[in-house]
Amino acid sequence: MTCDLVVENAAVLTLDAEWRVHEPGFVAVRGDAIAGVGPMAERDDWEAASAVDAGGRLLMPGFVNAHTHVAMAAFRSAGEDMRDRLGRYLFPLEKRLVTRELVRAASRYCLVEMASSGTTTFADMYYFEDEVAKSAKEAGLRCVLGETVVDFPAPDAPEPYGGIAYGLRFIGEWLGDELVTPCLAPHATYTVGPDRLREIRRVSEGKGLPALMHIAETAPENARFRASHGSVIRYLRSEGLLYPGLVGAHMVYLDDDDIGIVAESGMSVAHCPASNAKSGRPICPAGALSEAGVRLGLATDGPISGNGMDMQGVVGLFPKMQKVLALDREAVPARDAVRAATLGGAEALGLGSVTGSLEPGKKADMILVDADAFNMAPVYDWYAAVAYAMRPHNVDTVFVGGRVVKDGAGMRGVDEAAAKADMRAIAASCSGVIAELERGTR
Amino acid sequence: MTCDLVVENAAVLTLDAEWRVHEPGFVAVRGDAIAGVGPMAERDDWEAASAVDAGGRLLMPGFVNAHTHVAMAAFRSAGEDMRDRLGRYLFPLEKRLVTRELVRAASRYCLVEMASSGTTTFADMYYFEDEVAKSAKEAGLRCVLGETVVDFPAPDAPEPYGGIAYGLRFIGEWLGDELVTPCLAPHATYTVGPDRLREIRRVSEGKGLPALMHIAETAPENARFRASHGSVIRYLRSEGLLYPGLVGAHMVYLDDDDIGIVAESGMSVAHCPASNAKSGRPICPAGALSEAGVRLGLATDGPISGNGMDMQGVVGLFPKMQKVLALDREAVPARDAVRAATLGGAEALGLGSVTGSLEPGKKADMILVDADAFNMAPVYDWYAAVAYAMRPHNVDTVFVGGRVVKDGAGMRGVDEAAAKADMRAIAASCSGVIAELERGTR
Repeated sequence: MTCDLVVENAAVLTLDAEWRVHEPGFVAVRGDAIAGVGPMAERDDWEAASAVDAGGRLLMPGFVNAHTHVAMAAFRSAGEDMRDRLGRYLFPLEKRLVTRELVRAASRYCLVEMASSGTTTFADMYYFEDEVAKSAKEAGLRCVLGETVVDFPAPDAPEPYGGIAYGLRFIGEWLGDELVTPCLAPHATYTVGPDRLREIRRVSEGKGLPALMHIAETAPENARFRASHGSVIRYLRSEGLLYPGLVGAHMVYLDDDDIGIVAESGMSVAHCPASNAKSGRPICPAGALSEAGVRLGLATDGPISGNGMDMQGVVGLFPKMQKVLALDREAVPARDAVRAATLGGAEALGLGSVTGSLEPGKKADMILVDADAFNMAPVYDWYAAVAYAMRPHNVDTVFVGGRVVKDGAGMRGVDEAAAKADMRAIAASCSGVIAELERGTR
Repeated sequence: MTCDLVVENAAVLTLDAEWRVHEPGFVAVRGDAIAGVGPMAERDDWEAASAVDAGGRLLMPGFVNAHTHVAMAAFRSAGEDMRDRLGRYLFPLEKRLVTRELVRAASRYCLVEMASSGTTTFADMYYFEDEVAKSAKEAGLRCVLGETVVDFPAPDAPEPYGGIAYGLRFIGEWLGDELVTPCLAPHATYTVGPDRLREIRRVSEGKGLPALMHIAETAPENARFRASHGSVIRYLRSEGLLYPGLVGAHMVYLDDDDIGIVAESGMSVAHCPASNAKSGRPICPAGALSEAGVRLGLATDGPISGNGMDMQGVVGLFPKMQKVLALDREAVPARDAVRAATLGGAEALGLGSVTGSLEPGKKADMILVDADAFNMAPVYDWYAAVAYAMRPHNVDTVFVGGRVVKDGAGMRGVDEAAAKADMRAIAASCSGVIAELERGTR
């Protein structure tokens, strides 16, 4: 058989249904898709136009970051460790500082960190998502981009709920793109009323698109809907607002009944363990959700919440937090964490047949990892090595749809020096407002 | 004034009592110690034999890793996510595999990861600590090395409690070394009886040395001493076994009374948030201990517990876990975490006047960090940037006692290729036993 590229002599972690590891093994790529995967003994079945010798390195699916706000890289380290930060600090900050130009430059900047650390697919919620789409195309990353809808004037939409109109234009422009899935992102239960949430559901389902939303994340939200409906989840169910295309980020305020309701609804979850912990939130029952059959992805959240945008910062923290919650070292073994950080995220975003594992027919979204590094080797268990020891700098080469987007020389599609210079200019222009708001809220 | 070296044009995070940050600033080094620290306006007061232009990079104290078992790098990723791993898996593994040669090679290997990620001082508990001492000297790192004492035959001492005699010889050989502080390390309450613990206290206090010990770490230990004395801490107090030189690692099973007893005793704590979480343990009340005045350091624990040996993996996790414990985003702000990862660890190990901050008179243990990296910048708050966003690869140059131990070209004192080759040989020789034990315990 013929193919365009073969990556050979790798330890291939497939993340397929049989958890196959080919060591040594190969992946054959034709066009943007995986044509074959197997042990080196079968390598010669393929005639390849080009070959990459992995030299024993690890080849695994790229990470899927299921919930981010990439443009908020402009505000990283601002207003930290502050109670009620969202209302007191972030909304005013965004009102004054978020512009199309900021989103363009900051999203491009942030994607360098993400791609460099092995993320090949990400989901984003913010304003001016058309600018994020352009940055993703430039970087060469796969993404699901949700234009944010709130019931007050937003940086890119002066009318309350103006994000719906903005989002529809955005979807019209980008639907069908090979890398970008455009969609709507209602901000949260406390910023979008039920009528608009229903409208968003109708539009999203009509177009076969996911919808991204913060759900059961904050204490006031939990208190309010617990009083009125028993829980946030029961409120959403009562309004007919839980559905298979809905991707709920955070989901920390869930009781056992809620877990059953979530599973029954077919919705999926973007679990953000680092962000939730940094915000002093209860631990999301992510292990129980997964066991109940809920599609579960992992996510960093945005750069002011995470704050690192590498998936290494969450792939180990997910099992650790679940072990603490269960007081059981066996809870969520490393293998499940690696699956959640790759295929689980793809499934949660409706891309389970497109990416997340190394299997014939899927897009060739994969990363080469130097597992011989001092911080990873020796490796007696690949999943433990990836979940507990791997760090961003171990990622060597990143492929999306068979194209190299990053290698030892850096990003192929982004001028890194220009991206840094742009961010320096943004930070210089933002720092006065950031300091002023910080003085006012401390 | 004259000095040997000045590092200039840096953002100098001093971690001094006034939390001074000189941006831009300099540090002047004479011999192995810091002679001056200040803003660039005062730089010209110093005539320096050599100068390093930091080019705006961050200059901060090196990290202090307050509890490790570096030689266990040989076993990284073995027997993961397994209940009762210590007794069922690790002790048998060590009995069969730990030799002087393994400790020599594996400790040297592990120190590369640690130094490269910015650790300048570490505390270690294991067998053959004289080999760890040699590796530390080779790498150029400062350390407190505790020879392990257990009541059963150990890899380096065939008699029960043989570690005491081994440790006394080790102390005799190394006491007074400029980098190495040798001492004794009773393993735990459940592996060393009270008479031997008292003997270790007597010896340690007699020589003015710390003693390193696992305390209140495991559920069976907690259950046993809770039944007999109310708590592990109350047992140790009743036996006269809490004292200022004692460094307790883990300390997860503590109630409010215990926190007061610990504070009163003058002992210190090595907090291991990543290791504790991965073991499914309760969250150590580290914030409360610190507030009660207990000297608190941060630690990775060993490479099979952490599993990364970089302090970036714990400096952010400490505040995150404390915020989860308190359900309060303001609990343990980033600044306190950075202090615990540097000066706090030095204080906990009895080295508070030697290292941990950038102040005249202290040893020049410091790191240059590329905070302009995509994953760190922009920086509106240095402490948040270090605690929440910094990653191992951001560490550029590492100084211990004014000497460069690592820079862009790698380690100065360790042949990295040889260290990797040695570890490959060790892993090859261990993998059969590791797999055999794993089959027997799953």
